[in-house]
Amino acid sequence: MDYKNFKVEDYIEKYVELILKVGLKIKDGDKLVVRCPIEARDFAVECTRKAYELGAGEVVVDYRDQLISRLKYENESLDVLTDIPKHKVDKENYYMEKKAKYLSVTGSDPDAFKGVDAEKLFKSNLANSKALRDFSAKMMANYVSWIVVGASIPSWATKVFPDLEKGEAVRRLWFEIFNSVRLFEEDPIKALENHVDNLNRYSKFLNEAKFEKLIYKSQKGTDLEVGLPKGYIFAGAGDVNSDGEEFIANMPSEEVFSAPRLDGVNGKVYSTLPLNYNGNLIEDFYLVFKDGEVVDYDAKAGKEYLKNILDTDEGAKRLGEVALVSYNTPISMRKVLFYNTLYDENASCHFALGKSYPTCLEGGEKLSIEELKERGMNDSLTHVDFMVGDETTEIIGVKENGEEVQIFKEGNFVI
Amino acid sequence: MDYKNFKVEDYIEKYVELILKVGLKIKDGDKLVVRCPIEARDFAVECTRKAYELGAGEVVVDYRDQLISRLKYENESLDVLTDIPKHKVDKENYYMEKKAKYLSVTGSDPDAFKGVDAEKLFKSNLANSKALRDFSAKMMANYVSWIVVGASIPSWATKVFPDLEKGEAVRRLWFEIFNSVRLFEEDPIKALENHVDNLNRYSKFLNEAKFEKLIYKSQKGTDLEVGLPKGYIFAGAGDVNSDGEEFIANMPSEEVFSAPRLDGVNGKVYSTLPLNYNGNLIEDFYLVFKDGEVVDYDAKAGKEYLKNILDTDEGAKRLGEVALVSYNTPISMRKVLFYNTLYDENASCHFALGKSYPTCLEGGEKLSIEELKERGMNDSLTHVDFMVGDETTEIIGVKENGEEVQIFKEGNFVI
Repeated sequence: MDYKNFKVEDYIEKYVELILKVGLKIKDGDKLVVRCPIEARDFAVECTRKAYELGAGEVVVDYRDQLISRLKYENESLDVLTDIPKHKVDKENYYMEKKAKYLSVTGSDPDAFKGVDAEKLFKSNLANSKALRDFSAKMMANYVSWIVVGASIPSWATKVFPDLEKGEAVRRLWFEIFNSVRLFEEDPIKALENHVDNLNRYSKFLNEAKFEKLIYKSQKGTDLEVGLPKGYIFAGAGDVNSDGEEFIANMPSEEVFSAPRLDGVNGKVYSTLPLNYNGNLIEDFYLVFKDGEVVDYDAKAGKEYLKNILDTDEGAKRLGEVALVSYNTPISMRKVLFYNTLYDENASCHFALGKSYPTCLEGGEKLSIEELKERGMNDSLTHVDFMVGDETTEIIGVKENGEEVQIFKEGNFVI
Repeated sequence: MDYKNFKVEDYIEKYVELILKVGLKIKDGDKLVVRCPIEARDFAVECTRKAYELGAGEVVVDYRDQLISRLKYENESLDVLTDIPKHKVDKENYYMEKKAKYLSVTGSDPDAFKGVDAEKLFKSNLANSKALRDFSAKMMANYVSWIVVGASIPSWATKVFPDLEKGEAVRRLWFEIFNSVRLFEEDPIKALENHVDNLNRYSKFLNEAKFEKLIYKSQKGTDLEVGLPKGYIFAGAGDVNSDGEEFIANMPSEEVFSAPRLDGVNGKVYSTLPLNYNGNLIEDFYLVFKDGEVVDYDAKAGKEYLKNILDTDEGAKRLGEVALVSYNTPISMRKVLFYNTLYDENASCHFALGKSYPTCLEGGEKLSIEELKERGMNDSLTHVDFMVGDETTEIIGVKENGEEVQIFKEGNFVI
């Protein structure tokens, strides 16, 4: 695609179609909840229009306003911020029970909450997570179809492209968003399907190998053993909801991912990209694990936010996701730092602190939280991704009999 | 004020201050609910910021999106549209119970729902009104402080000023909005307070006269007797909530208003301005009343929407408000048709079909709906204003002893 002649409006409808037809597979009578930053209102309207065109019977649009949220954090007492009204929880559960599909549009000012009292931000998020625990658990267990996609908005675009004027930055970010989902290929739907097939091939290999653990090494100093629970499942981009309907949870998605054994992680891991936590950047950090738990950590910037993540609860000190991403993906090749997990996580191997996806264990979606923990799956109110891969990342899989298989070499899959 | 050099940003903060300080009297610890069209987001943010500055302890912003609403009306079944989820009602009641103050920002595309199936619009609005009956009743009885104000948005501004390009139309509409609340006077707060005093003087006169009925005549053909219930109260711009706090419910407000006797209206009344009902215009219509009830009507355009209003319920066929507005008010003098009741009602004497304000009867806010009806106060799920005054309007008040007092002459107050 020639960027010079690129017009956003020539591709928006294709993008929305890719999301709703291939991502969420919207069909007659479906209910759809759209969660969208207020700055991407036109995009929300376009998604709504297209969803009805595809047969949706009800669409609910929820706008999020970070400027209002920031004013709340700055001016409201902790009592007010942590008092989550019942009607708010009821609303989320209401559409979940009706098996609505969820389209979450990401697009946020990476600096939205910069300088906001970290303690207040943390306790307020925690109260929200607690109130919505059941809702989030159902979402993560794929009770319904859900997808996270990006939309270009001025505050985000000018952060990613600080040298461009606003309109041009927004256009450029749309270009990168479209590129990341292969929208410029001749047949984007086919390109996406092929890509999903590839990821499924990697997953199949990893699942059949029945590794006991993965060993990570990199020039930056990472030296980490990541144990895997018995019956682990690496999943690709494709998911299946509780009614057996397929969906793609992230667009873009370049990862295959599973769950580490909650007590099986040992060693040291270095971050390779900044972590954006509620608009605050945590940069150049490392974590040291012993028997699954973080026992030491440091960061060149934003250490207090890292502390807040780890302090969320017991589970926040342990890993809940292990994700493998080749260094040579379309996103990674563009060398753009998006300050947004959806994109940056697809540029690099990563882990997440916090809750595991129950679907990453055989039969996991039918187990209680206690049963999941007994089988090595982590539980927490949080789930925060952080990037650890670079062009020197080597990963070796070790089977129960001691056999070693090279999975990553110089940052890329070699299977 | 010289329009040529007028800059919106020079007056926005003054306007917001007038609303929050004089209109709602925001003080330490107040809760505030802001209901705002999504196109006026910047205005909502400014109101939120200022509310906290004045001490508000919590601000909740609810955005309304007419584009999404229209798509809903066009695509969702009546079953879906009329099924109002409990959490939605709970939310409204929650903040009402907490005695939040309500700031409703009007600013809507007059053509937003043009062409939408009238039946669907009607039944869907009816379901909503029924679900929120308790909430609305409390609002109308001034249980809490509330205010309706305007904000200029493109779709509205270009309808009012079709010959101006978008940006200029928005600027011009802001100018008219500011002018309507006397913001260009040297001391707008004092100007507003003086104006409210004037309206209170009219109210006092009308209340002390204890009229039995008002007789309306105009060149257009209006010839109508409007009976008043015993103990009627004409209210001016100033109101008092259930905690004794003063507020101003409409800004601008040029009216003094009360409730007609539900069975005491006889004769024929002609509209003098189009009525915008959910984005549909009802033009050049008349109503014929017998013993309070509409027994005949016609309209040159939009008759089906007029029919829908009247068919809402029994009370929708009777009057619930009688409002006196001089023809020579700042709004009226500008000769701008706003296609918006908040403004157009202040350019003209008007009535409303539907529910009366309980506060328009002595002790009314403590009476049940049945008790209110026994005393002549109308009840309904709806309340729709329509304009009847012009420069020829004459109004005579008739006392119980037959004494006649001229109240309006050639469109203006003469008391």
